[in-house]
Amino acid sequence: MLLVGIDLGGTAIKAGAISSEGKIVARREIPSALERGASDLLDRMAQLARDLGAQSSVGMGVPGLVDIAGGRVLQSPNLAVIERVRLVAELAQRLALPASSVHLENDANAAAIGEHWLGCGRNERDLLFVTLGTGVGGGLILDGGLYAGPGGMAGEIGHVVVDPDGPRCGCGSRGCLEQLASASAASRRAQAAGLPRSAPGNLVRLAQEARAAVGPERELLVAIGRDLGRGLASAISILDLRCFVVGGGFGAALDVMLPGVREGIAERCYGERLASVRVAQAELGADAGWIGAARLGMLRSRA
Amino acid sequence: MLLVGIDLGGTAIKAGAISSEGKIVARREIPSALERGASDLLDRMAQLARDLGAQSSVGMGVPGLVDIAGGRVLQSPNLAVIERVRLVAELAQRLALPASSVHLENDANAAAIGEHWLGCGRNERDLLFVTLGTGVGGGLILDGGLYAGPGGMAGEIGHVVVDPDGPRCGCGSRGCLEQLASASAASRRAQAAGLPRSAPGNLVRLAQEARAAVGPERELLVAIGRDLGRGLASAISILDLRCFVVGGGFGAALDVMLPGVREGIAERCYGERLASVRVAQAELGADAGWIGAARLGMLRSRA
Repeated sequence: MLLVGIDLGGTAIKAGAISSEGKIVARREIPSALERGASDLLDRMAQLARDLGAQSSVGMGVPGLVDIAGGRVLQSPNLAVIERVRLVAELAQRLALPASSVHLENDANAAAIGEHWLGCGRNERDLLFVTLGTGVGGGLILDGGLYAGPGGMAGEIGHVVVDPDGPRCGCGSRGCLEQLASASAASRRAQAAGLPRSAPGNLVRLAQEARAAVGPERELLVAIGRDLGRGLASAISILDLRCFVVGGGFGAALDVMLPGVREGIAERCYGERLASVRVAQAELGADAGWIGAARLGMLRSRA
Repeated sequence: MLLVGIDLGGTAIKAGAISSEGKIVARREIPSALERGASDLLDRMAQLARDLGAQSSVGMGVPGLVDIAGGRVLQSPNLAVIERVRLVAELAQRLALPASSVHLENDANAAAIGEHWLGCGRNERDLLFVTLGTGVGGGLILDGGLYAGPGGMAGEIGHVVVDPDGPRCGCGSRGCLEQLASASAASRRAQAAGLPRSAPGNLVRLAQEARAAVGPERELLVAIGRDLGRGLASAISILDLRCFVVGGGFGAALDVMLPGVREGIAERCYGERLASVRVAQAELGADAGWIGAARLGMLRSRA
């Protein structure tokens, strides 16, 4: 069976086709061009799905609070244009597929499914996928399947409060993990630390410097890692998780942050669990989202 | 089918028999008398189960880290006498039942199952049961069933860090929920607040004073509630839970703490979720543990 997945982001639409055995058949990427409106966006997503050979199943991952039953997104701060649009119905109609063949999920949840199916979580029954980008998102796999929670927003580790005296978050709280360990937070912390060799926002360069030598760059990344670990510790206390998969652009710096991550977990978790906790870099990179979205076609038709 | 459940605590063994439809048939309580050793304890539990008419299924809830597959408790700070004893095999032998008819679970998990089956969580698919006693324990019901996590210790909300600058906890962290909102913590906070009308440890009196009039007692209980709410907020962020069932001795003061609980959740949770979050007092009281343990006989034979 050929599965098509679409990962709708603020700047790009990533999509691909994959067999039910997990063999990637094709990949596409086009600009989101949100300014052209929802109908145009749906037309282009439908074209993309047709180009990829969609016959029986198309999955979509989109940022925001997803109403699975209604096939739409209730809230999406970065993609306001799709809010309340009946994405599933509209895409199904354009593809002449039954609505039951089109699947919708939150993008971080989709990426969690992707990493669990074919990425570094493939042998795990339970894991938290954490994405470090502009914000910090997450998706939970429990007992081998996605756990979205009663309201569909489970996995939002980015808004766990790590430091009640920390920086104010857009959500209204203080010191959320997102304010301490997202890519945006890392850039801000680098600037605040006066790191002259790293242009603001240039986190790849920052990570390179940190890898190359002991110094303020490494100190900063270990400190950010410590805050990440403190956040993950709350998921260990509540769910006794042993596997965390870290993705997103800034997740590429996990190797330098890792000693800090483990310190943060140790500081806030009791018992001898730390030794059995694995914190690993995501393996599918930018493919995780569309692969997980494609996988929805298998998971939901089976259910 | 008659189900027998046993709740083994540090001071008392509570047990009972219940029908598979949830009708309580009999209750018993005897002292734990741990000083007489594990073998004597097992003899008395077997006698209790026989007195209650155990024919086909006996469940046990015990404090500590439970090894379900091994039918034993790996660690139990307050019941060291049963550590590593093969509880399931030993009890089954004494009752001439197959080991598959005897079930073991952590006591807070058992109480969560009890409240979910017949208590105030009976219409909920997902909930966190929180027990406020000497410590703060918990048990998670997700997707309609107990979630114990990869290591069997899920639900341990008591060791979520609420205040990183707070009092040191026995687990090594600072400001764990247990250090702020357990019965022991409440007694300590009452003393520190110099509340003369409440003898140390007399939390029933404290709650009565708080209910009766505005004053320092009510302020204290609302402040403790606020810390409880802050801890629950992390479970809302991670699991998007909408139902919390609060039990344990000090849980009886939930009514006075509740305004604080809701403040603490609002402070640390974003979106409009608070309106749909229910924080309710456990309904089964001291029966929750043995009822949940009895229920294991239905859940596990079905699986």
